[in-house]
Amino acid sequence: MDDIRFAVLGTGGIGRRTLEVSQHKDGLTAVAACDRNGVAIDHDGLDVDELLEATEGNIASGPQGGGPDDVATDGGAAAARADGVKQHGEQAGIVASSQGEPTETPIDDIIAESDGIDAVLLALPNLEHDFIPRVAERFAEADYEGVMIDVLKRSRVIGMLDDREAKLTESGITFVCGAGATPGFLTGAAALAAQSFVEVEEVEIWWGVGLKSGYEDNRGTVREDIAHLDGYDIETAREMSEAEIEELIDEHDGVLEFHDMEHADDVLLERAGICDAEDVHVGGVLDVRSDEKPTTTTVSVTGTTFDGETGTNTFQLDDATSMEANVNGPALGYLKAGVRNNRAGHYGVFGPADLMPGF
Amino acid sequence: MDDIRFAVLGTGGIGRRTLEVSQHKDGLTAVAACDRNGVAIDHDGLDVDELLEATEGNIASGPQGGGPDDVATDGGAAAARADGVKQHGEQAGIVASSQGEPTETPIDDIIAESDGIDAVLLALPNLEHDFIPRVAERFAEADYEGVMIDVLKRSRVIGMLDDREAKLTESGITFVCGAGATPGFLTGAAALAAQSFVEVEEVEIWWGVGLKSGYEDNRGTVREDIAHLDGYDIETAREMSEAEIEELIDEHDGVLEFHDMEHADDVLLERAGICDAEDVHVGGVLDVRSDEKPTTTTVSVTGTTFDGETGTNTFQLDDATSMEANVNGPALGYLKAGVRNNRAGHYGVFGPADLMPGF
Repeated sequence: MDDIRFAVLGTGGIGRRTLEVSQHKDGLTAVAACDRNGVAIDHDGLDVDELLEATEGNIASGPQGGGPDDVATDGGAAAARADGVKQHGEQAGIVASSQGEPTETPIDDIIAESDGIDAVLLALPNLEHDFIPRVAERFAEADYEGVMIDVLKRSRVIGMLDDREAKLTESGITFVCGAGATPGFLTGAAALAAQSFVEVEEVEIWWGVGLKSGYEDNRGTVREDIAHLDGYDIETAREMSEAEIEELIDEHDGVLEFHDMEHADDVLLERAGICDAEDVHVGGVLDVRSDEKPTTTTVSVTGTTFDGETGTNTFQLDDATSMEANVNGPALGYLKAGVRNNRAGHYGVFGPADLMPGF
Repeated sequence: MDDIRFAVLGTGGIGRRTLEVSQHKDGLTAVAACDRNGVAIDHDGLDVDELLEATEGNIASGPQGGGPDDVATDGGAAAARADGVKQHGEQAGIVASSQGEPTETPIDDIIAESDGIDAVLLALPNLEHDFIPRVAERFAEADYEGVMIDVLKRSRVIGMLDDREAKLTESGITFVCGAGATPGFLTGAAALAAQSFVEVEEVEIWWGVGLKSGYEDNRGTVREDIAHLDGYDIETAREMSEAEIEELIDEHDGVLEFHDMEHADDVLLERAGICDAEDVHVGGVLDVRSDEKPTTTTVSVTGTTFDGETGTNTFQLDDATSMEANVNGPALGYLKAGVRNNRAGHYGVFGPADLMPGF
């Protein structure tokens, strides 16, 4: 586990933050990254600082422009130039430094070099549901052997991945799905909190996010969240202009509250045998005008013990921990756990913490 | 994962409760159990209710008698009789029902039948430090392939198991150590709570246990805890008579408070790379005269995020959840996770909860 070489697909908020967090972690080396317009591969390790600087323009790019959500579908002109200056501000890509190249086939380029890559993080907002499953399939068709991990949110995507399980298995892929904050971190917390019980009655996941200074960096996430509001869905949210989003946010004074969101925590807990999907409730409050969390992120698991008592175990994140910390830390933790599984041969002494997401 | 056949070594409080909890869990079949005087093996599944009834006398047996702690060392006369009546109250063992047999070699008897056993739970208080490592070694010497899991507490035992890792690996054993409540459940919670951070400064584990109605069933645990009080150690605690223990408890009005206990959470978190062992503090309050918990069991993990914030994530168990629920549920959860690892071939789609202890 001392040397995990990983790739990141997408250089939006999540991809960039994952690269940044990985620099604080032992044993993780970023060797490849791509977005719609560029790809950077260096099996000895990318210069992450340089890459972060070069992709900074991605933050401000609109959804019609070079967002990471369409990395695979765009065949447009490369935005990258060797001098590090973006050609088209609205089509930000990995700006070619000494390590980056413009490309029209970013994912194929990564696949072509995937022999030396232990894990691939799909940092793609996935507004099209089948996008991540389709990317997984392309890796499988190329006989990729390794870990693939995503931070998707929608429940329905899990089934699409399950449908492809035979193909992924045949290729030698360990696919870890829904491994961000929720689902991901908080799903794991619910699974653990359930251990006191023989019957789980309800799982309530309630999150708070303050996103003032991180707003520009997380427009894709905000857009995805809007799709959960009454009167909106994925299609309408995807088609909103930036101005329409601003207007909606104004109407709510910057604070959006969500209930019964379609977050995959439900199916992930059900498929692990912990409870019925319908007993899982996900909601939260997003404040885009303050960095303070409007509410404390809490997982509450209510169940019955073998000796007949009913109780609620809770897991709470400190308000000082940012959404970015709680998405990208766990994503890398689950990535490590995925690699541990993928490398097989699990003999020897294992402590409980070894069977959890690696740190 | 639909069919895990497991054995329990020891029929004291923990062994008996594990058997009981397993009846509420899908896919777990108890096929063998032993204590110092008896062994019961049925590869089609033991009659757990009958076994629990037959071993009820074990609860009251003193430490000089047939406690599960010396299951391996005693070669005394069998206490089991076919009519289900204990021969020697103080040497309680598995009373032979239709499924049980008296034996002088309980562990060897289990080993002889271990081909059909996926996992072995060592439900032994382990007042002698090297007892569990020595039992593991005996299974390895017999080329056992499968999971072994214990609920040991002391930090120093982990190193003894690590010393034997090559031997265990060669045999094909996945050994899961320290998989009860603390270490175990709460170690896992700490490992998970750490995921927000890139640097963990402190882990504080603080437990509360109310043990009035469970006291008789947990004398071994109380004795182990006493060894953590000022002026006591493992040897003195082991040699105390029941009367001396009662006296000590009287002096404290039934409430014992512990600080800086030698619990293996510290080394288990350090070996997983989460923090230094010295930054882990375990303590708690035991009330043997009330079933109410004297304090709420809480895991607090303080760390720094990649974006420079310091915070404390917390995991709390409902006061209504008993120690037994919080030891035996997680022990079986980790057992399932151990089997998942042991069976290898980890390809396919995994959700986060699949990488956690199974439910």
